[in-house]
Amino acid sequence: MSPECHSDFIVRTVNTPHQFSFENGVTVTDVSPGRAVGRLLVGPDSINPYGNVHGGALTTLADTVGGCCACSLGGNCVTAGCTMEYLRPARGRTIFCEATPKKLGRSLSVVQVTLTDEKNVVVATGTFTFFMLSEEQKGN
Amino acid sequence: MSPECHSDFIVRTVNTPHQFSFENGVTVTDVSPGRAVGRLLVGPDSINPYGNVHGGALTTLADTVGGCCACSLGGNCVTAGCTMEYLRPARGRTIFCEATPKKLGRSLSVVQVTLTDEKNVVVATGTFTFFMLSEEQKGN
Amino acid sequence: MSPECHSDFIVRTVNTPHQFSFENGVTVTDVSPGRAVGRLLVGPDSINPYGNVHGGALTTLADTVGGCCACSLGGNCVTAGCTMEYLRPARGRTIFCEATPKKLGRSLSVVQVTLTDEKNVVVATGTFTFFMLSEEQKGN
Amino acid sequence: MSPECHSDFIVRTVNTPHQFSFENGVTVTDVSPGRAVGRLLVGPDSINPYGNVHGGALTTLADTVGGCCACSLGGNCVTAGCTMEYLRPARGRTIFCEATPKKLGRSLSVVQVTLTDEKNVVVATGTFTFFMLSEEQKGN
Repeated sequence: MSPECHSDFIVRTVNTPHQFSFENGVTVTDVSPGRAVGRLLVGPDSINPYGNVHGGALTTLADTVGGCCACSLGGNCVTAGCTMEYLRPARGRTIFCEATPKKLGRSLSVVQVTLTDEKNVVVATGTFTFFMLSEEQKGN
Repeated sequence: MSPECHSDFIVRTVNTPHQFSFENGVTVTDVSPGRAVGRLLVGPDSINPYGNVHGGALTTLADTVGGCCACSLGGNCVTAGCTMEYLRPARGRTIFCEATPKKLGRSLSVVQVTLTDEKNVVVATGTFTFFMLSEEQKGN
Repeated sequence: MSPECHSDFIVRTVNTPHQFSFENGVTVTDVSPGRAVGRLLVGPDSINPYGNVHGGALTTLADTVGGCCACSLGGNCVTAGCTMEYLRPARGRTIFCEATPKKLGRSLSVVQVTLTDEKNVVVATGTFTFFMLSEEQKGN
Repeated sequence: MSPECHSDFIVRTVNTPHQFSFENGVTVTDVSPGRAVGRLLVGPDSINPYGNVHGGALTTLADTVGGCCACSLGGNCVTAGCTMEYLRPARGRTIFCEATPKKLGRSLSVVQVTLTDEKNVVVATGTFTFFMLSEEQKGN
């Protein structure tokens, strides 16, 4: 598959009804080799008890975009672990996420994510470790 | 407020419509000093592209139950950061979460969470750091 | 190799001069399938600017004991990543560490560590992810 | 204290005999507001069983330089927690570390660290959370 086709394939796979991310307002807007971006459309049900965007919604955005980045050169992956830093209250109608690799490996890929609000303030960051699936493992 | 009243207050605060967690099937079922438990009712929209429960849904469960544990002796908190380990595919109709403290501090509380499926298999674990809000900060 | 021989092999491999851990007072005292314990003998050069045990020394203890736990059923491993929570100031002449697995996998193992002081107070905890090396990869 | 004097004070505090970091070859080479850099001189006792630089040595470097960054605008701090990603085997005579803030807060500061070898290859990254000490707390 060409890089363009592969990127389209990733985007179509993720932006699909019944996915937890998609149903909660997360869409991946662009995937290219070594980079993925996406956004969370904040709705009335995105919030925590303080009225800010829930950390779970931010992590859903980060995990989804991060996984697209990990697979941006090809392959499939599952999330092995993550760390998130919730730096500032997340507010507004849209939260943006950019994911870039720290390492794209044969077995493990490590991706950093940066989440910003509409004023381009960084509201959260994270690091996701993905386990890359071989063709054989996908059959399981 | 008595411990019983405080626990009831936490549960009522979290199990409320329009919260991201509640709208996605997360409820906190019990809070007592130094412990909180809750569960995620898995629905058709809880999944990732592999058909397993999305890591974002698991983290939403963990964050919500963990925050109740951090506040179980009183006070309010916001999540400063977290780490999650997604150990095994999460499947089934219900995922359970138990949160216990590593430290309940005046400024920082650290809480560990364990997520299990209906067969009592641990599917994910995590560690959440909460920043405890003073009365003054809550006013901000 | 029998489990006993394998455990002896791990301990001998780690408790050896010129290792960073050993030269800094870290020894692994026992390894059995699914568990490893060790300790840090605190010396005049183990400290940070506050006179407490340096976080780097605690992490060295945790990484070393954690790695022995990850390999306790056989195999070799390298540390892929870790998280540490420094809960309380670490003082005294000895810091103890116990490591138990969250998951011992074919490719990834996740190990939790608990560090206690001589009064059995938990001073730090952590979670280490190890990448398990196959025979082929060890040759690289 | 002027920024220059404060930076000098930090460097002098850290680059001092009997500190765990200093005795293991770690020196902080420059601190300015919002940035700190340092290095690890790799010696015969810096290694793990594979002959690479031990993860504990890398974390010691990262923690030390990260703490200087957290205090680069003033104040004192203790490490609350960290995450490290060991991306590639660390070899050679010197490992370099640069620390920049994700957030410099009144109570919490979050600092990212990047560790590179002599060929400018990133061997490890990390995120450190520091609890900032008030004047009152320093007296404890």
